[in-house]
Amino acid sequence: MYSVGVDIGGMSVKIGIVDNGNIIAKKVIKPKTNPQTEFVKIIANTINDLIVETKINKSEIAGVGVGCPGSVDYNDGIVLHSGNLNLKNLNIKQIIEEITKLPCMVGNDADLAALGEVKFGIAKGYSDVIMLTIGTGIGGGIIVNGKLYTGYRGMAGELGHISLFYNGIKCGCGRSGCFEQYASATALIRQTKQAMLLDENSSMWNLVGGDIDKVNGITAFSEAKKGDKTAENVVSTFVSYLTEGIMNYCNIFRPQAVIVGGAISNEGSFLLDKIYNYLEKFEYG
Amino acid sequence: MYSVGVDIGGMSVKIGIVDNGNIIAKKVIKPKTNPQTEFVKIIANTINDLIVETKINKSEIAGVGVGCPGSVDYNDGIVLHSGNLNLKNLNIKQIIEEITKLPCMVGNDADLAALGEVKFGIAKGYSDVIMLTIGTGIGGGIIVNGKLYTGYRGMAGELGHISLFYNGIKCGCGRSGCFEQYASATALIRQTKQAMLLDENSSMWNLVGGDIDKVNGITAFSEAKKGDKTAENVVSTFVSYLTEGIMNYCNIFRPQAVIVGGAISNEGSFLLDKIYNYLEKFEYG
Repeated sequence: MYSVGVDIGGMSVKIGIVDNGNIIAKKVIKPKTNPQTEFVKIIANTINDLIVETKINKSEIAGVGVGCPGSVDYNDGIVLHSGNLNLKNLNIKQIIEEITKLPCMVGNDADLAALGEVKFGIAKGYSDVIMLTIGTGIGGGIIVNGKLYTGYRGMAGELGHISLFYNGIKCGCGRSGCFEQYASATALIRQTKQAMLLDENSSMWNLVGGDIDKVNGITAFSEAKKGDKTAENVVSTFVSYLTEGIMNYCNIFRPQAVIVGGAISNEGSFLLDKIYNYLEKFEYG
Repeated sequence: MYSVGVDIGGMSVKIGIVDNGNIIAKKVIKPKTNPQTEFVKIIANTINDLIVETKINKSEIAGVGVGCPGSVDYNDGIVLHSGNLNLKNLNIKQIIEEITKLPCMVGNDADLAALGEVKFGIAKGYSDVIMLTIGTGIGGGIIVNGKLYTGYRGMAGELGHISLFYNGIKCGCGRSGCFEQYASATALIRQTKQAMLLDENSSMWNLVGGDIDKVNGITAFSEAKKGDKTAENVVSTFVSYLTEGIMNYCNIFRPQAVIVGGAISNEGSFLLDKIYNYLEKFEYG
């Protein structure tokens, strides 16, 4: 039995046909989210196209699973609010089911990432796992006793919205000093730009051809690996923010694993070693 | 069927015989915790005394439940580490069972407080609850899907040890800026003293007869109620710290209730109203 997976992100929508955890075909699209119902129709039509192209019979497809940032009503498949995508009360389930004629379930993207890692990925077989997805914001998924924890009425696991700095940077959620204001990819880019503006000799300027608008989440990591001191400082400070948040979740949940997802996980052992070093300073591990 | 409940605290040990959640007899003792095994023997002997005094037959007593701050091995009934009580690898279960001839279970005090509130108390019947016990430190209990959550190998719910201030006040746990360094009773007393030293006209000085060593967790609340501006500021700042932590746990768990325990809960609506006001500022509720 096949399934269709849809990952709605701030930069793109990834649509894949999956066979027991293995992606056998995929498309990446960049639709505008305005009007928001049109956005979902494009996704649904792309699913249909992908099924036709792969010549899979719809009767062999169990259904469509959609992950979306923000707060999601799991029962009705409605995205109640997604700040970064500017979606509100959007009935994704209904539109996808109408157009694809397949059953559809919608969930918070980080929740589903956590489930995916426990079922097929790095935490396969684990019962107690915290997932942090580092992107435009920080998403969170909580696996407790082998099950996704969504709180009393859903919407638990807003793991980016705990205060790391009392009275710190204003956050879109209404609070100040939230974890995601310091340890998201957006925050890393801001921190990188700020450091570059204070050091005109940093090799990061060469990497971006002198254009600060070309700074991204890789810029500081890339030049830190080559020994640029300013880039090293940016990475080291960023890692301290990220790891403080990880330690918070270890103290709260004592999980078997904390999984760090998002593009930043491509930094691999370069990032992981720094996280472990920071943890060791506080006698964790 | 009766039960015996033991609450080991930083200032005293409370021992009660309980009938379906109602305390029918109790003793409060203040034993020294050194040597630590002697400490437990005194508790066990006091249990025996209380049973004799109440003329209850031991066959009518289901067992002894012991709550203790710190990290507890639930299976073996051993307090692995309790910083505030200076206990280490103490097999409470074994000593109590030997002396009382009753089965004994040992748990983290805030965990058991959470279970108690859900079974008999303010959160009766609730399935998803966060308990914060405000005392020498801040203890935490997590009820998820109707059950106590203790993490993969126990010791979850160290809810006082999440960072509220990056690089803030050094904490006994090894980290900096922990929640309990700002919102415990110990922290409140420190904050009260600091404010008094900056205002010799505060009515708090009268309350303690000019002796700053007599400041306790009630001092600022008491004078704030009478309109002393400095006391009001202490309470208001303390409430902001406490409520930031409460909001963190709401974002993580979306529980049905957050319960605030410890002596500070005696402040009742005077405290609660201030917490609600602070929450409203951030559109919670």
